[in-house]
Amino acid sequence: MVVYGRNPVREAIRGPRKVHRILATTGTARETWIREAPAALEVVTGEELERRCGSVDHQGVCAEVSEFHYADPQTLLAAPGLIVALDQVQDPQNLGAVCRTAECAGAAGLVIPERRAATVTAAVSKASAGAVEHLAIARVRNLADFLNEAKAAGRWCYGGDAGARTPYDGVDYGEAAVLVLGSEGRGLRPRVAAACDLLVAVPVRGRVESLNVGAAAAVLIYAASQSRK
Amino acid sequence: MVVYGRNPVREAIRGPRKVHRILATTGTARETWIREAPAALEVVTGEELERRCGSVDHQGVCAEVSEFHYADPQTLLAAPGLIVALDQVQDPQNLGAVCRTAECAGAAGLVIPERRAATVTAAVSKASAGAVEHLAIARVRNLADFLNEAKAAGRWCYGGDAGARTPYDGVDYGEAAVLVLGSEGRGLRPRVAAACDLLVAVPVRGRVESLNVGAAAAVLIYAASQSRK
Repeated sequence: MVVYGRNPVREAIRGPRKVHRILATTGTARETWIREAPAALEVVTGEELERRCGSVDHQGVCAEVSEFHYADPQTLLAAPGLIVALDQVQDPQNLGAVCRTAECAGAAGLVIPERRAATVTAAVSKASAGAVEHLAIARVRNLADFLNEAKAAGRWCYGGDAGARTPYDGVDYGEAAVLVLGSEGRGLRPRVAAACDLLVAVPVRGRVESLNVGAAAAVLIYAASQSRK
Repeated sequence: MVVYGRNPVREAIRGPRKVHRILATTGTARETWIREAPAALEVVTGEELERRCGSVDHQGVCAEVSEFHYADPQTLLAAPGLIVALDQVQDPQNLGAVCRTAECAGAAGLVIPERRAATVTAAVSKASAGAVEHLAIARVRNLADFLNEAKAAGRWCYGGDAGARTPYDGVDYGEAAVLVLGSEGRGLRPRVAAACDLLVAVPVRGRVESLNVGAAAAVLIYAASQSRK
């Protein structure tokens, strides 16, 4: 597959994926980090890059890389630290934004359902500024079942729900929380919400009805990761 | 000017702007909220909408509205509650995202510099889900001077700085804070940072170097607004 954009290509080089070939425009190909990358380099036109990437957001560079390697959900459950789970988030921008925040906050990893959810594409890598290369991301068949397994493994599951009675900042999330966020508009599915130990709300006081899922995730991820300092 | 997209048009109708005319595709024009809007309605093709909006993100509707009315900085300073200031944020997506979060958190308003910064365009309104219609947004000639005025008026100014020693969550922001965020990559300009009472960091523990400004803003805005519950 192809990843495009400066940060995604840079992080693909630094991360575990194999980088087969880098394609860059004349100007970008002169930069040290590209010249010194351990991969074949081909100089192409901007138009050729746009065609290869299927996007105008390539910033002068793309790379042919090995397929994204998803993490094993059981391995993720066994790792220490915060797990973020997304219930049917379909917008690649939102998935990428949450990946970036989760990686920056030092989360153990992220879980997404196999169906009706964005997967790790080049657009998601771009939206994450390349953070997907350093984050364990697992796909599960059934998110509610995964949460039940997490609870059986001793984790506490907290679901973000704008209508919940418990404010997010009154909770001690402990050291092994699972934070579950729903898609914008629809929120958590009932079975997923029911599998959570506690639903927590990020209070909204304005006239616009809801926070962007990336913003709500940032607030909750940092609340949960700071409480285990 | 024109605003486009479902939420931006809906919030323009609910907010203080004059809505002169709504243009919608056949399907969208049938919806109750558009039929009952107090403005002339014109049914157009998707192509015509795209041409009027200069964007494919119109979701079947746009509106001709009066110019965005910026708030007076002195009036904003006199209002109670949190003020968010952005130092040269140039990406409309990021400005829109911060506006949405600030409005949702119930902030008093937002301050942006007159130069080298994104202004409230249709793209910003779209990225904010229409939140700009309900948020006091002021433009100032010099942000450092504004912060000094804010301090003289009894406010405390907190600057977000990834390299700061004080973690953001160890601070009592009080009831009249000004939260200052810089652009991604460059951060706060020295004179702006110097005008802050305290610099606070949102800790980054991953391999990706920085949070998206929208995510950092969400963490800080909620930290500051929750501490004045």
